Amino acid sequence: MLSALRLARARPFCFRPASLHSRHRFPRFSTSDATVAQAGPPGPTRLDRAKRYARYAGLFTLSSALGVFVIGAGIFIHDVFTYSDKHIDGVPISPLGVQPGRGGPKNLPIARVRVEDEEIEQNARLAEKPRLVIVGGGWGAMGILKTLAPGDYHVTLVSPETYTTFTPLLPSAAVGTVQLRSLIEPLRKMIARLHGHYLEGKAVDLVMSERLVEIEGIGGDHFYIPYDKLVIAVGATSSTHGVPGLENCFQLKTIEDAKNIRRRILDNFERASLPTTTREERKRLLSFVICGGGPTGVETAAEIEELCREDIIRYFPKICREDVSIHVVQSREHILNTYSEAISEYAEKKFQRDGIDLITGARVEAVTDDSVTYIIKDPEGKVDTRTIPTNFVLWSTGIAMNPFAQRVSDLLPNQVHKRAIVVDAHLRVKGAPLGEVYAIGDCSTIETSLVEHFMELVNEADKNKDGKIDFEEWKFMVENIKARMPMSEIHLQEVRELFEAYDKDRDNILSLNELLPLLQSIEQRLTALPATAQVASQEGKYVGRKLHRLARQTHAAQVNGLRLPRDEDVSRPFKYFHLGNLAYIGNAAVFDYHGYSLMGGLAAMYAWRSIYWNEQVSTRTRGLLMIDWIIRGVWGRDLSRL
Amino acid sequence: MLSALRLARARPFCFRPASLHSRHRFPRFSTSDATVAQAGPPGPTRLDRAKRYARYAGLFTLSSALGVFVIGAGIFIHDVFTYSDKHIDGVPISPLGVQPGRGGPKNLPIARVRVEDEEIEQNARLAEKPRLVIVGGGWGAMGILKTLAPGDYHVTLVSPETYTTFTPLLPSAAVGTVQLRSLIEPLRKMIARLHGHYLEGKAVDLVMSERLVEIEGIGGDHFYIPYDKLVIAVGATSSTHGVPGLENCFQLKTIEDAKNIRRRILDNFERASLPTTTREERKRLLSFVICGGGPTGVETAAEIEELCREDIIRYFPKICREDVSIHVVQSREHILNTYSEAISEYAEKKFQRDGIDLITGARVEAVTDDSVTYIIKDPEGKVDTRTIPTNFVLWSTGIAMNPFAQRVSDLLPNQVHKRAIVVDAHLRVKGAPLGEVYAIGDCSTIETSLVEHFMELVNEADKNKDGKIDFEEWKFMVENIKARMPMSEIHLQEVRELFEAYDKDRDNILSLNELLPLLQSIEQRLTALPATAQVASQEGKYVGRKLHRLARQTHAAQVNGLRLPRDEDVSRPFKYFHLGNLAYIGNAAVFDYHGYSLMGGLAAMYAWRSIYWNEQVSTRTRGLLMIDWIIRGVWGRDLSRL
Repeated sequence: MLSALRLARARPFCFRPASLHSRHRFPRFSTSDATVAQAGPPGPTRLDRAKRYARYAGLFTLSSALGVFVIGAGIFIHDVFTYSDKHIDGVPISPLGVQPGRGGPKNLPIARVRVEDEEIEQNARLAEKPRLVIVGGGWGAMGILKTLAPGDYHVTLVSPETYTTFTPLLPSAAVGTVQLRSLIEPLRKMIARLHGHYLEGKAVDLVMSERLVEIEGIGGDHFYIPYDKLVIAVGATSSTHGVPGLENCFQLKTIEDAKNIRRRILDNFERASLPTTTREERKRLLSFVICGGGPTGVETAAEIEELCREDIIRYFPKICREDVSIHVVQSREHILNTYSEAISEYAEKKFQRDGIDLITGARVEAVTDDSVTYIIKDPEGKVDTRTIPTNFVLWSTGIAMNPFAQRVSDLLPNQVHKRAIVVDAHLRVKGAPLGEVYAIGDCSTIETSLVEHFMELVNEADKNKDGKIDFEEWKFMVENIKARMPMSEIHLQEVRELFEAYDKDRDNILSLNELLPLLQSIEQRLTALPATAQVASQEGKYVGRKLHRLARQTHAAQVNGLRLPRDEDVSRPFKYFHLGNLAYIGNAAVFDYHGYSLMGGLAAMYAWRSIYWNEQVSTRTRGLLMIDWIIRGVWGRDLSRL
Repeated sequence: MLSALRLARARPFCFRPASLHSRHRFPRFSTSDATVAQAGPPGPTRLDRAKRYARYAGLFTLSSALGVFVIGAGIFIHDVFTYSDKHIDGVPISPLGVQPGRGGPKNLPIARVRVEDEEIEQNARLAEKPRLVIVGGGWGAMGILKTLAPGDYHVTLVSPETYTTFTPLLPSAAVGTVQLRSLIEPLRKMIARLHGHYLEGKAVDLVMSERLVEIEGIGGDHFYIPYDKLVIAVGATSSTHGVPGLENCFQLKTIEDAKNIRRRILDNFERASLPTTTREERKRLLSFVICGGGPTGVETAAEIEELCREDIIRYFPKICREDVSIHVVQSREHILNTYSEAISEYAEKKFQRDGIDLITGARVEAVTDDSVTYIIKDPEGKVDTRTIPTNFVLWSTGIAMNPFAQRVSDLLPNQVHKRAIVVDAHLRVKGAPLGEVYAIGDCSTIETSLVEHFMELVNEADKNKDGKIDFEEWKFMVENIKARMPMSEIHLQEVRELFEAYDKDRDNILSLNELLPLLQSIEQRLTALPATAQVASQEGKYVGRKLHRLARQTHAAQVNGLRLPRDEDVSRPFKYFHLGNLAYIGNAAVFDYHGYSLMGGLAAMYAWRSIYWNEQVSTRTRGLLMIDWIIRGVWGRDLSRL
């Protein structure tokens, strides 16, 4: 290694890119000697020059290789010594890893904290800790794992997948632009920092009175895990909108989905290449229908188009490329309708240019195993039913509760939301024992009801108890509302104007009859947070930080015999900071931040890549992703159906 | 990029590994100031030094990153411009890609050569070419693809997998040491060089009289492909040896197998970590049984052991590691019995040291879904039946015919071999129309029968037609046998000694009664070639080169109106060059070449890696493999069950 260094230092010229040119010059020497002879010096010198170039080229190659090795080795040595998210002495025997007693309403085994004799000593501190159980292994759960400190809790994470997934790149992975393995990181590695435990399984039921969560383990056995704090972060499934035949559709929410999509796409191309396939059948096999014009749908459509244009064309019969059609069916009038108008327009123009069939204002009626039927209104308002023969349908239109979230919602009488578990501004599940059950991410929604708390708000604000609200009292109420619901902030900026607008009788006092419509109008403008990775991640970090503070202050309070802290004592309500929307549309990227839009080709794409690269959970996936992008640039997409 | 170069040149010191040390010095500055103050200069200088180190460290990081980028980019630019195995204008419409007529004994569609009108012009030459159909996509098929020249034949390759696999690394891939994707290369890319066609499907039947091979395409449709030359390279399945319950076993022959094995191993560990799992059940889940002590079995056992020792221990409860047991059941007295004795001994000692349970001289009686039962003789000759509870059984003991090979064998009355299709020394299937059907690789075996050709050999050698063979005639016969069967060479070296040994009546002439036992004794010493990648690859290259010559000389003969060349005219019989055996046994490697043995730790392992690295089919897999090895070194094995 030292000699390599010496070589690299002794021959700085070998880094000159000129030696690249020399590669191109060689053929010229041999093919057009005459030209060179006219311009250049006579024979021997030419030979010398050729020799010199050859030597440079050789040295360049050698030193490049050595350089890559040395520098690469340096980086990796650095990484090796700094990457220490491991249980160095091996994972202590799981306190749950001993035969548990039985109990709970279903008389199932309860995996209580109990430690093998030899390890009691070292784990005694851990065993006393409050038990935190996290259900789910996505963005929300990762947010918690990142912000908790080791030793705060005895942490157990339950998830049916052994890894966490970088979901925003799933559309890319589904067509082989990046590898699936580059998007995932084992949960066991993530939880090692907290000396926590991971169990492969899924939560199926909850006994809030006994603080037990029922788990179905990977083998199919059911058992309870006791908790002191439970965080539900199970995500969501796709909304069916009552459309029949959705079992024929793909979703794109997990690695498994991406794998199946990829297999189907390549299968379709292989089947289309067989000699017994008729033209009609080939067109059906190569027709890709995407239902939903949100970021996932748009990105997938663009990736499929790119796959065909860049890679399929090279290795499959031409006829396959010619028979490909990509259809995006969107219920609204525009795709990417949560983004700015400029971006939505940009994406639509790009789709038009790329020959992607955009069907807006259409409602999918039914999906069968060989077609999609939708209803569309033509400009004259005539309703038309159309059918696309296809062998690939992706369904990505909105979210619905997954079975565990549904079960939790059913258990609590005041949970009436159809698509998610309602939580308060501190992300505590409404109706559950206070400070014991949290829900974050796609499976939860923060309550937006002001009217429900109308009397409460009035009582708190009405200082003189006259049953009316004057301007001073209104200002207090506004602050109160903002504190309870940070997302109402932007709708409550013009305090005076709001007050005057609803003070119909101009008496400078709001009667309850005047106040109610005011709060209703604000409530209507409050919208639920979108079901995005960004929201889930921020919610996870918020809950993690809060739980950390709670653990510390609870311990201090116990020591000093003080009142135990509540959520409100250690943190303010959750506030979402929107960092912009991001999408990748076929070798171009769009970015949308509070009304500012950025879109375009290569530069935007690299910006897009670097943002995603930064958001990775580990150095490992970061490295893999970089490698994937380089490999894809050099050798194209991976066309093996694996 | 230029500025990066300039920086790298202007600051050669930033390559010094010293800056690595500086990282370690930082904490010392802050934690033990006193020591430093005694030894070093006063305050400001210390600060300066700290600053300087900080600057060095920063520059080192920056320039490392830039260096990697620049040099990496250079390499990749080079690769981009040199990698051109593509159909640049897209794949021409497959001549088979048009609705075919029907025919053959089953009246199925026949995918005859027919080209769409617009492309007739450019493909006319191709359409006239003899049709070569290759069935299978493994080592044999790759050998052919590598040695044929574009334009020799109209090539069609049929395989149920869309990629070719680097089989020797499957055991590594099965435990996540390397990625599965690094072992495969799409067949469509491999065949692009020959402007050939790939069809996803499997051969199910053969009509030799009409030169049609029946294919079951990926969609399930059956059709015929016409051929002029057919090469059967379908490989083999594992031999069952009549053991019941083998459906509970894994094989390790394909990527799919490796994937399933990997999933099962990680599943077993996850299930073992659940709180409801009893000790007994945990031991069963973590008991890995490998039936067969050949290279595949030995390598897999070693890889599983390494996985447990290096990676599982870090992230799974300790108890899991303690309950792991690995068993290798071998029918012979030693493992790796085709290797040299020294190597076999080395491997056994290593297994003993690593705690792998080696059960030799044992015969597996039955496999169930939760155990393996075997019979073993103890030293006194007492037979004992034992059972290992397990949830993982790998079956890798010898080979058997797969269905298509069996079908071909059944079609030909003179094919009586039980495990493979018998071919002559030119690798032509015995009994099939001469020069039309070849078989290579694991599905074939070269005939070793001399006695069958006894009278033929005598007639050719017996110049004076006296019904006896004198020494001169014997010498001629030896040359004849060697030419027909190159593998008999080493048994025919001592021409005089053999003659004298069997000339019982010392009359210096071999009567037919003396000659027969001589040939029988040689025949017994001829052994079939092993079913290895090496043999298959060499056979493929041999057939490819021969077919290339045949194509050229047939064309020349047709032009000049001469007799068409036969196999014998263009090439000598196939001769195998043994390049040594290679195995990788848990961070050590063994190598065996004609009696010379090499075994050991890191150095041998790197030798092993570089040999395999060299054997890769493409630059792409070579790069990926290198990356895998580095990643595994830095971050350990990939523990995600994907």
